[in-house]
Amino acid sequence: MPTRHKVRISRLLPVSIDDVRLAAEAIRGAVEHTPTRPSRTLSDIAGCEIWLKFENLQFTASFKDRGALNKLLSLAPSERARGVIAMSAGNHAQGVAYHAGRLGIPATIVMPLGTPFAKVRHTKGFGARVVLEGATLSEASVHARALAEKENLVFVHPYDDEKIIAGQGTVALEMLGDAENFDALVVPIGGGGLVSGVAVAAKALNPNIDIYGVQTRVYPSMYNAITGSSLPCVGQTMAEGIAVKEPGRLTTAIVRELVKDIILVGEGEIEHAIAALLEVEKTLVEGAGASAYAAVCARPDLFRGRKVGLVLSGGNVDMRLLSNVILRELSREGRILSLVIEIVDRPGVLAQVATLVGEAGGNILEVLHNRMATDTSAKLAHLGMTVEARDAEHAEEIRGHLRSHGFQLQG
Amino acid sequence: MPTRHKVRISRLLPVSIDDVRLAAEAIRGAVEHTPTRPSRTLSDIAGCEIWLKFENLQFTASFKDRGALNKLLSLAPSERARGVIAMSAGNHAQGVAYHAGRLGIPATIVMPLGTPFAKVRHTKGFGARVVLEGATLSEASVHARALAEKENLVFVHPYDDEKIIAGQGTVALEMLGDAENFDALVVPIGGGGLVSGVAVAAKALNPNIDIYGVQTRVYPSMYNAITGSSLPCVGQTMAEGIAVKEPGRLTTAIVRELVKDIILVGEGEIEHAIAALLEVEKTLVEGAGASAYAAVCARPDLFRGRKVGLVLSGGNVDMRLLSNVILRELSREGRILSLVIEIVDRPGVLAQVATLVGEAGGNILEVLHNRMATDTSAKLAHLGMTVEARDAEHAEEIRGHLRSHGFQLQG
Repeated sequence: MPTRHKVRISRLLPVSIDDVRLAAEAIRGAVEHTPTRPSRTLSDIAGCEIWLKFENLQFTASFKDRGALNKLLSLAPSERARGVIAMSAGNHAQGVAYHAGRLGIPATIVMPLGTPFAKVRHTKGFGARVVLEGATLSEASVHARALAEKENLVFVHPYDDEKIIAGQGTVALEMLGDAENFDALVVPIGGGGLVSGVAVAAKALNPNIDIYGVQTRVYPSMYNAITGSSLPCVGQTMAEGIAVKEPGRLTTAIVRELVKDIILVGEGEIEHAIAALLEVEKTLVEGAGASAYAAVCARPDLFRGRKVGLVLSGGNVDMRLLSNVILRELSREGRILSLVIEIVDRPGVLAQVATLVGEAGGNILEVLHNRMATDTSAKLAHLGMTVEARDAEHAEEIRGHLRSHGFQLQG
Repeated sequence: MPTRHKVRISRLLPVSIDDVRLAAEAIRGAVEHTPTRPSRTLSDIAGCEIWLKFENLQFTASFKDRGALNKLLSLAPSERARGVIAMSAGNHAQGVAYHAGRLGIPATIVMPLGTPFAKVRHTKGFGARVVLEGATLSEASVHARALAEKENLVFVHPYDDEKIIAGQGTVALEMLGDAENFDALVVPIGGGGLVSGVAVAAKALNPNIDIYGVQTRVYPSMYNAITGSSLPCVGQTMAEGIAVKEPGRLTTAIVRELVKDIILVGEGEIEHAIAALLEVEKTLVEGAGASAYAAVCARPDLFRGRKVGLVLSGGNVDMRLLSNVILRELSREGRILSLVIEIVDRPGVLAQVATLVGEAGGNILEVLHNRMATDTSAKLAHLGMTVEARDAEHAEEIRGHLRSHGFQLQG
């Protein structure tokens, strides 16, 4: 009996639909009600009916605004006067600093050393005091806790807090209000604040909805906690927003109860998802923000023919990394090809190769001569050439044109 | 007396507000009513109140859907049966092909040779016949006209057509319906279809509104037509959507009457605008689509303190060019610096330089040795190094750290 089941859950879990509804009332007007829109093209590609929730269009470009504001509004006057402190080099920092600034609450943000100056400036621009301390996030965190104690500041946890979780849950209220009959929602998981809030709200409104979490394979921390695995949580990821080693205590309890499964996605899948959302939907999402689409592509069996809501959780991505993601995607699609051509090392040969590539419609991006390769005669050299083609078929035409004129291609 | 003036205009001009209203009725439900949203951050930067119209979120990612559909719906049954033809390698092709396909009207799209296969495939995917012919857009155009005559097809002009202009004008109806009291609208101009429709609709609803057109300095064709100048129309531009040599006859008449001024913007300004819309607004626009924001940045004197609506006309941008735009912008911001360092050509020196750059927090992206520079001793070499910094101040720190250890930097 679903209704009784629902009541049981909301009694046991630390956050209820009522908490989420109160959060929605509290933050209304001060955070964006972001669009929930269908994507025909991504639906065609993925074989299910995809709806996107554009949390990358929040003012600080992530859902973190919601929880941060709900938490700040819940503070007693004496706590507001003491001021708050948070540790983050990312979206949580922006969310807390921005809303604390608006509300006139003194805010301290601890960021690790080496945080890009633009982020520091942004955070200071919201009126926050920024303390740069610690070589890593962990070290910065230790410092933030110590500073909180020393200066009697209210520590605002990024996810393991009832008010934060309830605030993030407003994402689901908006989605289920703006579109009907979702079969499933897919939500990125770092510490678990977003997925917990979304699951509490969505399951209360529709007990039959499936909530799927997504983590990067590099940081499967909540996956470990739920499944009892001990996969390593270490490495580089484009999805630094969900690269969290320690899931929350409250959030783990909620995920265990309400989340159907956690899908792990690889870095290549995340990169492809960022590129697809940019090229098809014209929207910029960060790695974590793209992970829900990556999950739907990785596990089509779970979603085929169903109506699926994906939370694009944020849009703060380093521009140089974005440019790398785009180029790597072009390379995967065969639109940028790296040729290594064996040539006789004499005048005119580069011109000949360049002419052939041009005839075939290829655009030469980079040329490199290597005369040191000892696996060939001293009279030969290796000519490395990076060429832009229209697509994979065109790339093959370019290779063919060179071969048909007697050039040997390596690789 | 504005009212009488308005009546006079609508009698004389080839398109009226009533035509635009009829177009809006006709196309309703089959094209997106795209969002009109304010941007706080861009407003702060530009010193005026900026609202953005997201025509890049149309299904084929540009406003061209509107005019194309309005034109197709206006055809007589006999014309529909004959079929339509259009020439375009860009947004007009997609708009005509998509809606003709939906309506079951046979469509032929002539594209120049060398059009990327993805575009050809897209267009074919909508059910259109694609004819690849002509080395340039002009040659393709001549072929399209000949084919139209030979096969008795209805030629769908990209801009110089009353139905096309009326369709594009629905952009302004939506903007003025979704936001109030605009002082000015800023609209990209290629052939002039969009700006004409927008001007007719907006000036009828609010005679005091100022309509500004934008062209790239590389193709100031409408500017020439209106001002009697004869600036050259030739060259490469990121804004190929507005790289049009011949403005329309109808559109020129409307622009002359209703557009207050045409602002010319440079390539660097367009690139910066693309990057800013991506980084701040998380939205992908093509060069033409970014030109209105570029114009507001280029002429702050015209817009200071005013409420300004910018039409982001489309979002179809080549991904490799986009990655270049991002990198060039980082370089302009000082986040990627190119060092040329004079070194003694002996073992260990590269390691020393790399260590210093690392100590200063710089990330080395590329290294190049040049031993052929003859302006120095044979014992010296030039070490070229591309380094990523956090920002311009950090870049200066990296240079300073190298200098303080005795290295000479060129440039």
